[in-house]
Amino acid sequence: MLTALRHWLLALAAILLLPTPALAEDGYDLWLRYRPLAAGGATALPTGVERRGDTPTLRAAEAELTRAFAAMAGGTPARGARVVLAGAADPEVARLNLPLADLGSEGYLIRQVRLGNAPAILITGNSDIGVLHGAFALLRHVNTGQALAGIELASAPRIGLRLLNHWDNLDGSVERGYAGESIWDWWTLPEYTGPRYTDYARANAALGINGTVLNNVNAKADSLTAPYLEKAAALAAVFRPYGIKVYLSARFSAPVELGGLPTADPLDPAVQAWWDAKATEVYRAIPDFGGFLVKANSEGQPGPRDYGRTHADGANMLARAVAPHGGIVMWRAFVYADTDPDDRAKQAYTEFKPLDGQFADNVLVQVKNGAIDFQPREPFHPLFGAMPGTPLMLELQITKEYLGYNTHLAYLGTMFEEVLDADTMLPAAGASVARVVDGSLDGHRLSGIAGVANIGADRNWSGSTFDQANWYAFGRLAWDHTLSAEAIAAEWAAQTFRPDPALTGPVAAMMMGSRQAVVDYMTPLGLAHLMGTGHHHGPAPWIADLARPEWNPAYYHRADRQGIGFDRTASGSNAVAQYAPPLAARFADPATTPEADLLWFHHLPWDHRMQSGRTLWAELVHDYDRGIGSVVQMRRQWDTLAPLVDAERHAETAAFLAIQQRDAQWWRDASIAYWRSLNGLPLPDGAAAPAHDLDWYKALSFPYAPGHPD
Amino acid sequence: MLTALRHWLLALAAILLLPTPALAEDGYDLWLRYRPLAAGGATALPTGVERRGDTPTLRAAEAELTRAFAAMAGGTPARGARVVLAGAADPEVARLNLPLADLGSEGYLIRQVRLGNAPAILITGNSDIGVLHGAFALLRHVNTGQALAGIELASAPRIGLRLLNHWDNLDGSVERGYAGESIWDWWTLPEYTGPRYTDYARANAALGINGTVLNNVNAKADSLTAPYLEKAAALAAVFRPYGIKVYLSARFSAPVELGGLPTADPLDPAVQAWWDAKATEVYRAIPDFGGFLVKANSEGQPGPRDYGRTHADGANMLARAVAPHGGIVMWRAFVYADTDPDDRAKQAYTEFKPLDGQFADNVLVQVKNGAIDFQPREPFHPLFGAMPGTPLMLELQITKEYLGYNTHLAYLGTMFEEVLDADTMLPAAGASVARVVDGSLDGHRLSGIAGVANIGADRNWSGSTFDQANWYAFGRLAWDHTLSAEAIAAEWAAQTFRPDPALTGPVAAMMMGSRQAVVDYMTPLGLAHLMGTGHHHGPAPWIADLARPEWNPAYYHRADRQGIGFDRTASGSNAVAQYAPPLAARFADPATTPEADLLWFHHLPWDHRMQSGRTLWAELVHDYDRGIGSVVQMRRQWDTLAPLVDAERHAETAAFLAIQQRDAQWWRDASIAYWRSLNGLPLPDGAAAPAHDLDWYKALSFPYAPGHPD
Repeated sequence: MLTALRHWLLALAAILLLPTPALAEDGYDLWLRYRPLAAGGATALPTGVERRGDTPTLRAAEAELTRAFAAMAGGTPARGARVVLAGAADPEVARLNLPLADLGSEGYLIRQVRLGNAPAILITGNSDIGVLHGAFALLRHVNTGQALAGIELASAPRIGLRLLNHWDNLDGSVERGYAGESIWDWWTLPEYTGPRYTDYARANAALGINGTVLNNVNAKADSLTAPYLEKAAALAAVFRPYGIKVYLSARFSAPVELGGLPTADPLDPAVQAWWDAKATEVYRAIPDFGGFLVKANSEGQPGPRDYGRTHADGANMLARAVAPHGGIVMWRAFVYADTDPDDRAKQAYTEFKPLDGQFADNVLVQVKNGAIDFQPREPFHPLFGAMPGTPLMLELQITKEYLGYNTHLAYLGTMFEEVLDADTMLPAAGASVARVVDGSLDGHRLSGIAGVANIGADRNWSGSTFDQANWYAFGRLAWDHTLSAEAIAAEWAAQTFRPDPALTGPVAAMMMGSRQAVVDYMTPLGLAHLMGTGHHHGPAPWIADLARPEWNPAYYHRADRQGIGFDRTASGSNAVAQYAPPLAARFADPATTPEADLLWFHHLPWDHRMQSGRTLWAELVHDYDRGIGSVVQMRRQWDTLAPLVDAERHAETAAFLAIQQRDAQWWRDASIAYWRSLNGLPLPDGAAAPAHDLDWYKALSFPYAPGHPD
Repeated sequence: MLTALRHWLLALAAILLLPTPALAEDGYDLWLRYRPLAAGGATALPTGVERRGDTPTLRAAEAELTRAFAAMAGGTPARGARVVLAGAADPEVARLNLPLADLGSEGYLIRQVRLGNAPAILITGNSDIGVLHGAFALLRHVNTGQALAGIELASAPRIGLRLLNHWDNLDGSVERGYAGESIWDWWTLPEYTGPRYTDYARANAALGINGTVLNNVNAKADSLTAPYLEKAAALAAVFRPYGIKVYLSARFSAPVELGGLPTADPLDPAVQAWWDAKATEVYRAIPDFGGFLVKANSEGQPGPRDYGRTHADGANMLARAVAPHGGIVMWRAFVYADTDPDDRAKQAYTEFKPLDGQFADNVLVQVKNGAIDFQPREPFHPLFGAMPGTPLMLELQITKEYLGYNTHLAYLGTMFEEVLDADTMLPAAGASVARVVDGSLDGHRLSGIAGVANIGADRNWSGSTFDQANWYAFGRLAWDHTLSAEAIAAEWAAQTFRPDPALTGPVAAMMMGSRQAVVDYMTPLGLAHLMGTGHHHGPAPWIADLARPEWNPAYYHRADRQGIGFDRTASGSNAVAQYAPPLAARFADPATTPEADLLWFHHLPWDHRMQSGRTLWAELVHDYDRGIGSVVQMRRQWDTLAPLVDAERHAETAAFLAIQQRDAQWWRDASIAYWRSLNGLPLPDGAAAPAHDLDWYKALSFPYAPGHPD
């Protein structure tokens, strides 16, 4: 008998150890990757989940916990307390007098208590959504290797609107997407809502993301027609239990295109009436619709300026339409005109600052982190701090349009942290961008942050394993901007791979240096926008012959025989004057400007002396080589981690790091070849000559680069 | 001790029963879905796999069997004989004197034998690839619920070249693709070859598909440049162990576009030299490259006619270039010209038949199943049988460009079977299209069949579960055209869902009627090409105002107040004369023309009396309603199968069937509304009026229909 049993057990064990295709580590699980815990952790798992209340949200929380605990237990019987999901209104919870006041409507509290005369891990909040967020927080706690015993967590979001912006087109393509087609299958909606939509909601709810703009800011009016509203409504129904609202990008000229009106003038009563009726129609389809995002008078999009009106006129018209329904308008400040000869970096400020205070109280102005366009590094946008009378929403780009697509490892947590922590000094020191954005500085009711999604139909969602970390970091910082990018990197690595310091330490270290590596090999020392025009892939600093000046990389670097950089001081465009006076003074002088931003603000001679003692020219070359060195170091580090990472994801990252090293070398060599064609300088001592001559680099072309540029 | 053990066992059992996300039935496994067998089957599984020889192909065969048996065993100890993988040259195998002569280079033989004095299930063949095909055949045998005991299988392909044609573009889009982006990630090739490429090869090798044309017949010359050849070579390396060769679509004007030549004239020595050098370059990158597929002088593509040369001149030039390397050329006969006023259905025959015998001996002419373009039903193409001196390759469309994309359930096995079984009667009865294609009729060395793939990056590969069956049916019929579509449907269902007659019977029945349902509700009685121009979605028989005559559905139906149909008899275009005389005579008379093709060959009055006794008008309406009825019946049938199908795939198909019913109704109503606007006839007794008036249907538009039409 025992022999037969042993035989059976061995066979069973053999199956459990088999690498089956179903268990392939294809990255689909993201940070909701529930795997058997090490023995100690598993025995302390909760013995069960008790749900008090029968709402879709509480059921979702229960389902998530049940699924996770079952997978984590790995056959080990649980011995810990049960988990109780209960809102603040539960009588027993109410009697505990827990400090729930500061949790707001979305925060959570987790604590070991006694309920019904038995020990319990209570997850509670002032709303079901708060409880759901708590359930995910508990799972993050366990999945990062922390013990449940003595757990005590409480957190509430600091920013009200935490949104993804999908630049997804109705034809299934994704502008600046490097992870396959759009996950929205407009063609089979609303009839079919497959499991991927729910998994999208789970992944976002786990971070506390509470809204998603479904369609590209370069919007088609069709998304506002009845069939597409029905499709959006089907998605909203899937997302609703997870506390995620649906928003749409609105095309400003829709009253003309759909309504047949002769104008889209925001002050025309017929136009206002059309939008009022459209908003009513939208809310009939989606009662908790979030609101509209608008890109107007920007890069060819229609807008109120077409009719001699201001951005405030345009935004307020839409705001009036959605206000009765509780909706909001997010109006983008990303504007620059081919007819305006002024420094592109100045134009948004010039146009929007005078409008401060003129926007309706359900409007947020959405401002990119920097004044140009999601470069590897930009100083913070001068509008932050400059419009105290207006809630400013921070727009970050998660997809790596300018940072190597999906094949370069570049963790953006540090970039997001950098802008959030930047001190606007308006009205005085201590006025960080984060405090502008979360509304605490100016006492705004509305606050918001948006990330341009890097999500597509690729199995791993983001086109690479490490790009998942950028979605994750955005979500975590959107919830709590006081978290550190490094801690976020480590907790992401723990959940994505394993909660083993031998892995999380090195992985977090790779991640923390990775964005600077990209800055170094692409655009060091404050250079920007030197990428190939259109697709933004690879170096093309020589492009100078395109019709619109700001289409040309040469517009941005202004290099010549004497020097390099964009003079934004008083002797140049005087963009520095858009910052608070102490910052303006600091940025006006090369000696006090942070060297990381030096050529953003100054045109300097090639022999300008740097803090290192090197000339500017030698420092540039040094930085390029440092960038390559960082990538080489990441590859070495990654190789050493092979025993701790599954083969599938290890191979993918290894292949992509090889691509990154090749591209870094290309950036360095092409850039140096070009700068030398201008400055005629010899290579600094010890610097290797570019592999090819300049013409070779100029001849490269990429007609099929992904991301569907126009 | 025993108690603890029991506890542990129960816990273990609990895990095994857990529905984990990793085991979600997302369709990725296709027909290689290995799941625990019912107890009896599992105990009879082989005890092990013995591989005799160490080649990549034999290792692939071993890996597949090991993986499958482990998953099928489900913890049950195997008791059957071992499996031995050994080529015909193995001394022990040779001594068995097995009948291997007829297996050719790709066939297999499976038999229970004694090897090394122990029982074994021998899988053998004249090549490693044959053994691999045998391994997949054995798995199909088991996975369709058949016992291993007494297994005796032998099979060899009847057609030499069994190819997929991918209409995949270099930008990642797929022309006529309804399953997401291209699975070729040109951007990360050649550096990264993820697991999906291997799984693609496995799925195809399981069917015996032995070649794949990677890029769209509407080709870009770039696919022939060094970087893209390197990418194609990386794919070829993945596919090679699976016996799958890589082919490319070649753009005829590449010598001009890439080579800078002033002409692509096939008789110009410089052009020949350019192609010779290009072929050498291709074969240096891919030593076993298959050859070129060419779409020339067709729908705007360049070709030899641009220089006053024939298709044979063009094909032979390329054939000379690849011949020294063992390559072939597949030259498409899908041509029709806007400058030719003749019946579109006649033009390919008119142009190609005179060229019979003029093609080099490594050229195949690739002919679509019908003379128009992959309609729900077409009579077989009259070129079959008409060019005995030329190997004709049959081109089938697996992707459902004209049959409802991925959301209509339409099993194409019956359509493929219909054309393969069609008797050309050239030179006499019994000369089926299959015998023309497999080369047996005319004794050709080369033979080939191609299927335009329905494969994309969607997780389930084909955009729906049931569309996987069309890829499967193509592959199985390409291997052996004597298989029945019904048997293929049942074996597909068994592997895809479960080998349970309670499921496979009803599913196969649904599939067998499904294509006729589409014919009925879209284009009954020989009507064709009534779909919306460009995207080919939905009814648009009213379109009559486009510049090129054959862009207009009205060109094809020719309906007016008096009647409907295309007169292809002597009183019309006389296309019937392109068939063998007995068929021409049959098709020339409405009384002897199969009613399924009636309006393809004849323009008939609305009151033409049908075999049913109904008028043509009443019969049309009857057929539309029958089509809808079939879909309703499929929905009912599918509902009853819910207990036998996993929730995920059941829900997807159920949602798609609902879409199909809606679309069928739309086709019927719009068509009837339009015909009535012409014929002024009352609805037949009992027929329901269309839900909307004709203008409503005309106003529908689909600017974002998938499939990337031009």
